Amino acid sequence: MPRPTPPLAPRMADITPFHVMELLRRARELEAAGRDIIHMEVGEPDFPTPQPVLDAATRFLSRGDVHYTATVGLPALREAIAADYHDRFGVTVSPERIVITPGASGALMLALAATTGPGDGWLLADPTYPSNRHLIRCFEGVAQPIAVDAAQAYQPTVAQVDAAWAGHTRGLMVATPSNPTGTLLDATQLRALADCVRRRGGWLIVDEIYQGLSYGVEASTALAVTDDAFIVNSFSKYFGMTGWRLGWLVVPEGRTRDIERLAQHFYICPSTVAQHAALAAFTPACRDILEARRHTFAERRNLLLPALREKGFRIDAEPQGAFYIYADIANLADDCEILARRLIEEAGVAATPGIDFGNHRPRQHIRFAYTTRSERLEEAVARIGALIGR
Amino acid sequence: MPRPTPPLAPRMADITPFHVMELLRRARELEAAGRDIIHMEVGEPDFPTPQPVLDAATRFLSRGDVHYTATVGLPALREAIAADYHDRFGVTVSPERIVITPGASGALMLALAATTGPGDGWLLADPTYPSNRHLIRCFEGVAQPIAVDAAQAYQPTVAQVDAAWAGHTRGLMVATPSNPTGTLLDATQLRALADCVRRRGGWLIVDEIYQGLSYGVEASTALAVTDDAFIVNSFSKYFGMTGWRLGWLVVPEGRTRDIERLAQHFYICPSTVAQHAALAAFTPACRDILEARRHTFAERRNLLLPALREKGFRIDAEPQGAFYIYADIANLADDCEILARRLIEEAGVAATPGIDFGNHRPRQHIRFAYTTRSERLEEAVARIGALIGR
Repeated sequence: MPRPTPPLAPRMADITPFHVMELLRRARELEAAGRDIIHMEVGEPDFPTPQPVLDAATRFLSRGDVHYTATVGLPALREAIAADYHDRFGVTVSPERIVITPGASGALMLALAATTGPGDGWLLADPTYPSNRHLIRCFEGVAQPIAVDAAQAYQPTVAQVDAAWAGHTRGLMVATPSNPTGTLLDATQLRALADCVRRRGGWLIVDEIYQGLSYGVEASTALAVTDDAFIVNSFSKYFGMTGWRLGWLVVPEGRTRDIERLAQHFYICPSTVAQHAALAAFTPACRDILEARRHTFAERRNLLLPALREKGFRIDAEPQGAFYIYADIANLADDCEILARRLIEEAGVAATPGIDFGNHRPRQHIRFAYTTRSERLEEAVARIGALIGR
Repeated sequence: MPRPTPPLAPRMADITPFHVMELLRRARELEAAGRDIIHMEVGEPDFPTPQPVLDAATRFLSRGDVHYTATVGLPALREAIAADYHDRFGVTVSPERIVITPGASGALMLALAATTGPGDGWLLADPTYPSNRHLIRCFEGVAQPIAVDAAQAYQPTVAQVDAAWAGHTRGLMVATPSNPTGTLLDATQLRALADCVRRRGGWLIVDEIYQGLSYGVEASTALAVTDDAFIVNSFSKYFGMTGWRLGWLVVPEGRTRDIERLAQHFYICPSTVAQHAALAAFTPACRDILEARRHTFAERRNLLLPALREKGFRIDAEPQGAFYIYADIANLADDCEILARRLIEEAGVAATPGIDFGNHRPRQHIRFAYTTRSERLEEAVARIGALIGR
C-alpha cells in the first residue's frame, strides 16, 4: 500500500489531462485486440522528418560534440528564422528578438511566466488549445474565455475583447491558424486586435504554431502588423519535426534578456541536436518537400470537408489551415463524448471530443485531424456513414 | 525606438540571471581578442557524448520516424532506468514511477508545480543551485534558505530543518552530490531527513543530478531510504549528454498520473531522439566509457584540491562528488566578484563567484569546476598563484 502523501498544490485541481488521451488508450487496447483503428485524433503530421533535416542531424552527430548551446539558441538558427520571415513574409525582425525554445510549449510557458502574476487574466477564444488555459493557471493567472462561434470563424472580435476586458485582464491570446478550428485571422483583423490590446495597455500572444499549413490562403504572420506581441512558433507542424521538441518565441523588442533569464532556469538551452537539425529546415530542398506535403494536406482537406458535410456534420466556418476540421454534431448526436466513444468502439475511428477545447458548446463538436492518408480518410468517412446510417 | 511595453509579472523582479553568464560573455570577448582563457566556470563535462549513445541516435535517425512519444517517455527507457537502479543500487522501483523529462530542469519544474501553491515554503541549503529558488518563485512559492557551512559539509541537518520548518513550509529540497559544494549526504543522513519531512507532513525533493560522479565514496540514491520523495535526475552529467536535454523524475507511488497531466501541458513529451539515444547509456560498453571518465574526474579532483589549498584557498568540507570545488577565499580577497574579475582579466581563469549560489557568505566563496583537462588545471593554478603572489 502506498503511504498517503501530502496534498498537491491547489492548481492541480484545475489541471485536467487531455480527454483524448483516454480515447487513445482505448484505441491502443482495441488495436492490441486486433481491431483496425483509423487515427483522426492525432495532432501530429504522419510524415517522417524531412530527409535534409535528418541528414543535418546525422552530420552533426558524427562530430560527437553535443554540448549546451546559448540559452536563447544557436545564432545561426536565430538568423535563419529571421531570414525566413523576410523571405516568406517580407517582414524584418532582428535575430535578437528570436528565442529558440524546447517546442512551442516552452515558448508559451516563457511568455506567460514573464507576464502573468497571481489573478492576472488572459482573454482567449473558447474553443482553444487546452494547454493555453492550463499554463495560464500554472502561473496563477486566470483564463477569461471568449465564446466564439462559426459565424465569426471561431476568432474573437475587437468588440468581444473590448467587452470582456476587465480590471485584472493582462492580455489577449489568439491563434492563427487555430487549433481546433483550422480558421485564420487576416492582417486587418490582427491589426485591429493588436491596436485594441495596445490601447488597453495589455500584452498580445499570437500562436502561429500552424503557420505555413494553410490552403487557398496565403500564410501570414502577426509580425507584419505589430512588433509588440509575443509570437509562438514551432518546428513540429509545418516543418514536420514533432519528436525533436523545438520551437521559437519572437519577443517584443527589448525583452530578450528578460525571457533569457527565465529560460536559463526553465531549461538551460533547447536540444542542441534538434537545433543543428533545424538549420536544414530552411534550405530550398527542404522547402520543396514541405510544400509538397502542404499540397497533400490540402488534398486531404478537400476530400474530408465535403465528405463530412455529406454525412451530416455541420462545418460552417471554412477551415483553411492547420490539419483540423471542427465539426458541429448537433444533427447527429447529443454529446460528443458519446459519439466519440461510439466512433471508436463501433466504427474504429478515433476523433477528439470537443470537451478538450473549452466550455462553449463543447459537447456539440468533435475535431477530426487529417493527419492520415486519403484512403484511410475515405474509409473513415464510409465507416462513420455506416454507423450513423447515412 | 521600441515602444514601451506593459509591465512584467511581479515574479520577474526576483528572477536574476546566472552571474556567471556575464563572466562567460567577458571570457568570450577576451578570447575573441586573442587571450587564452581557462574555463573553470562551466558546469558541463568536457567529454563528447559517449560513442554508443551517438551510434544509437544515428541508427534511430536512419529510420526517420521522429514522432511524439508517450508524455512520460518510452517504456523501454523507463524500464532501463528501473533496471539500473536495481543493478547499481540494489533498489526496486517500478518503471511506472519513472517519468522521463526534458532535462533535470523539466523534472524539477514538474515536482514544484505539482506541490507548490502561492506562499508555500521550501527549505533548501544556502548555497544551492540558483535555479532551485527561482523555480520555486516561478510557481509563487517562497524559498526558505538554510545557511550551511563547511563544518556540516554544506548539507542541512535535521535540527536545522526542524528549527526552520514554519506554518507555510511545504517541503525540503536537498542535493547529493551538491552543486556548488560537491558534498554528499549518506544513507543515514538522508533517512533522518526523510523521516523528519514525513513527520512534518511535507514533501521531499532530492536532486541526484550528479549521481555516479563520486570519488572515494560509493554512489547512492535516496530511493534506498524512501519511496515518498520526488527524485530529480539527469543524463547530462554522469552520462555526458548535456546538449540532449534529457532527465527523469522518480515520483512517489501513485503520483505518476498527476505529474503526467502537468507534463502534457509543459512539454508534450521529451525529445524522441534523445530518448532513443539514451537507451544505449545503460549498455556495458557505455558504462565502461563512463567509469573511465569518472576516474579522470577523480584524478583532476585529486590534482586540483591540494593545489588550490596550497595557494591559500580554504576547502574544509572535502568535495567527494560532482565536479566542483567550493573554495573559501577569505585568506585571499574580500569579495568573490572582485576576485573572479581579477582572475579572468589578469590570469585568464574563469570561475564562478559565490553570489550565484545564495546569500550565506557568498562573497567569501568561489566555485571551481574541473571540467577541463589536467594540464589546463595545472596551468590555471600556476596563473592563480602568480596573480595572488603564492
